Amino acid sequence: MEGNGSEKHESIHKFTQSNNQSAHLALDIGGTLIKMVYFSSNHNCSSDTHVERSLEETNDISHGLEKYHSGKGRLHFVKFETTKINDCLEFISSNQLSTHGDAPDKKQHSAGARNLIKATGGGAFKFAELFMERLGIILDKVDEMDCLVAGANFLLKANNQEAFTYMNGHKEYLQIDHNDMYPYLLVNIGSGVSMIKVEGDEKFERVSGTSVGGGTFWGLGKLLTNCKSFSFDDLLKLSQEGNNRVIDMLVGDIYGGLDYSKIGLSSTTIASSFGKAISENKELEDYRPEDMARSLLRMISNNIGQISYLNALRFGLKRIFFGGFFIRGHEFTMDTISVAVDFWSKGEAKAMFLRHEGFLGALGAYTSYQKEGSVESMSHHLIEKLEIINAAGFLQT
Amino acid sequence: MEGNGSEKHESIHKFTQSNNQSAHLALDIGGTLIKMVYFSSNHNCSSDTHVERSLEETNDISHGLEKYHSGKGRLHFVKFETTKINDCLEFISSNQLSTHGDAPDKKQHSAGARNLIKATGGGAFKFAELFMERLGIILDKVDEMDCLVAGANFLLKANNQEAFTYMNGHKEYLQIDHNDMYPYLLVNIGSGVSMIKVEGDEKFERVSGTSVGGGTFWGLGKLLTNCKSFSFDDLLKLSQEGNNRVIDMLVGDIYGGLDYSKIGLSSTTIASSFGKAISENKELEDYRPEDMARSLLRMISNNIGQISYLNALRFGLKRIFFGGFFIRGHEFTMDTISVAVDFWSKGEAKAMFLRHEGFLGALGAYTSYQKEGSVESMSHHLIEKLEIINAAGFLQT
Repeated sequence: MEGNGSEKHESIHKFTQSNNQSAHLALDIGGTLIKMVYFSSNHNCSSDTHVERSLEETNDISHGLEKYHSGKGRLHFVKFETTKINDCLEFISSNQLSTHGDAPDKKQHSAGARNLIKATGGGAFKFAELFMERLGIILDKVDEMDCLVAGANFLLKANNQEAFTYMNGHKEYLQIDHNDMYPYLLVNIGSGVSMIKVEGDEKFERVSGTSVGGGTFWGLGKLLTNCKSFSFDDLLKLSQEGNNRVIDMLVGDIYGGLDYSKIGLSSTTIASSFGKAISENKELEDYRPEDMARSLLRMISNNIGQISYLNALRFGLKRIFFGGFFIRGHEFTMDTISVAVDFWSKGEAKAMFLRHEGFLGALGAYTSYQKEGSVESMSHHLIEKLEIINAAGFLQT
Repeated sequence: MEGNGSEKHESIHKFTQSNNQSAHLALDIGGTLIKMVYFSSNHNCSSDTHVERSLEETNDISHGLEKYHSGKGRLHFVKFETTKINDCLEFISSNQLSTHGDAPDKKQHSAGARNLIKATGGGAFKFAELFMERLGIILDKVDEMDCLVAGANFLLKANNQEAFTYMNGHKEYLQIDHNDMYPYLLVNIGSGVSMIKVEGDEKFERVSGTSVGGGTFWGLGKLLTNCKSFSFDDLLKLSQEGNNRVIDMLVGDIYGGLDYSKIGLSSTTIASSFGKAISENKELEDYRPEDMARSLLRMISNNIGQISYLNALRFGLKRIFFGGFFIRGHEFTMDTISVAVDFWSKGEAKAMFLRHEGFLGALGAYTSYQKEGSVESMSHHLIEKLEIINAAGFLQT
């Protein structure tokens, strides 16, 4: 989750389970990524068959496995690209993560409806048939917004080191008072962006959104760098080496190096993203991919920060939590969003980030098992696991 | 101004003047375009030397000359690319538009300061020395926001057929009640975007802006189509032939063709601009320039519409006037902006457009002569011209 290249070298552990009920699995199938949360109890872990599965071999950038240990078991966070859904199916199958294993008898499942897996995101609809056909799994659909909010609320309550601010290179964890958590604006930056006013545990409203999100960064970034094999992380890494002033038109470029101080714009303020590409007699290949990635990231981060602030302002919300896989703990992204919120709110509103940003929906789907006491004693298993998460704490970053 | 290719075939009329005082000239020198407004009285026009000057020959897309005739004279609207400022200087010189002709005696001018020309935009600072050196002209700087507001207010008052709405292919002129014009939000989309709350003749505040503007469309558009010679109009034209669904990720793409109706998103809503470019194994050259131009135009127009609405909402403004050269009377642009404002405001706010959108700043600079009675009887000339504009009406579109 920390947006570094090392996750490429991680491996996915295969393990067998004697007790199917002890593996809980939830999915968030978005436009770009599938996020998976699952639990394995310790007695299974002890019988792990460590089959190394190189992510590079599968050309998959982003399994990004994380595990949380405790005395009782592990909580796993995995992601796949949505276009590589077969990898996801295979992973579920080979690790026997579905309650009834990977050799489904369709009749049995559709009749008994026992092989239900909580799933959210558009893919829960789009791929429902595929999951049934291939694994005999019925995707039990949970609303996307419900899940995002449930996931965020769960994390903010369960983990002391979850929320932090990041500005000018300084990261600071925040202690969230559980009695004074609400209201806040939740901005989930996935392929697109959803903005949700959260007022209580299940009291929320999606108030806005924008189509300029993570999918735009990755999609436009691939086109501009003309490298179809570039991963999201490759583009983020490129952007670190870039200089946006090569392509962005700054106030100083228009004002002959001067500020436009009367309206509070310094000479280094970006007047027009990608505006310099107009005036120069250059083609795409004359620009460095690094600089284009930087301009793009800044344009999108700044835009999201601004629209988020304007929505927070509508409802008098001082706190804005940013989640979704777009951020990936990337310092420049967080810094740009923070500066945008600070600039437009004149210091009134604050951008905050979540360490488990990418898994809000999947976690929310996961916690939704808890509500359904009817589902074969899953409830007490889940509660146990929530305790485990609390006890174990989350991976230190 | 109507964003069609025909202006390429227009010609610029050269004329001589016997009375220098009768030519008034004002400039708005932006990051991308120089906008010029000047007046020629009829006795000069009658001695016009019609020298055809092909815009294609000069590879200049956007002189976009307009003229308004009346019994007394003509008001001319011309534009140049800022990078081709030499064309602008030459145009002023060869048409003797500067008060004292084109053979300046620098000492005389700096001493007497008689050869003042009102100019706004950042280029009034950046190119001040150039104008002095080459033409002996002192650019008399007028604040950019002052000019935009003055220009918009002037047009709304002076011209009955100035403001219109445009949605779903339907254009409707609005009668503006001069006693009930304020407040409104003025959104000027140049290279970047300024948003100004206007409450009265000289009562206004720049409340917001965004770097995602006309410069972004042109700059990114050039890069994506990889054609450095593409003009802004070329890109607009391309976009008319394009289909954004090829590259944008729609709600239906994520939800398997379904709407996400619970939060009011239809399957055809764009979830992620350029998001489809992630998942497909394509390179830049595999996409049609038309489709990319379309996606880009829609992304930017929609974004500006949304941010504009959010700012209008902050101040309870129901009317939003869009100006600036980005729009260029382009139907798809206006339609997208209108739909965005309508969608986000749930029909509460209205997007309106101005026929002389691109010349707000230049007109504002032009009207600023009027305030300075001290400047050699310019005042009565200007008043006369304002009457002319009123009498003549503006070019029918």
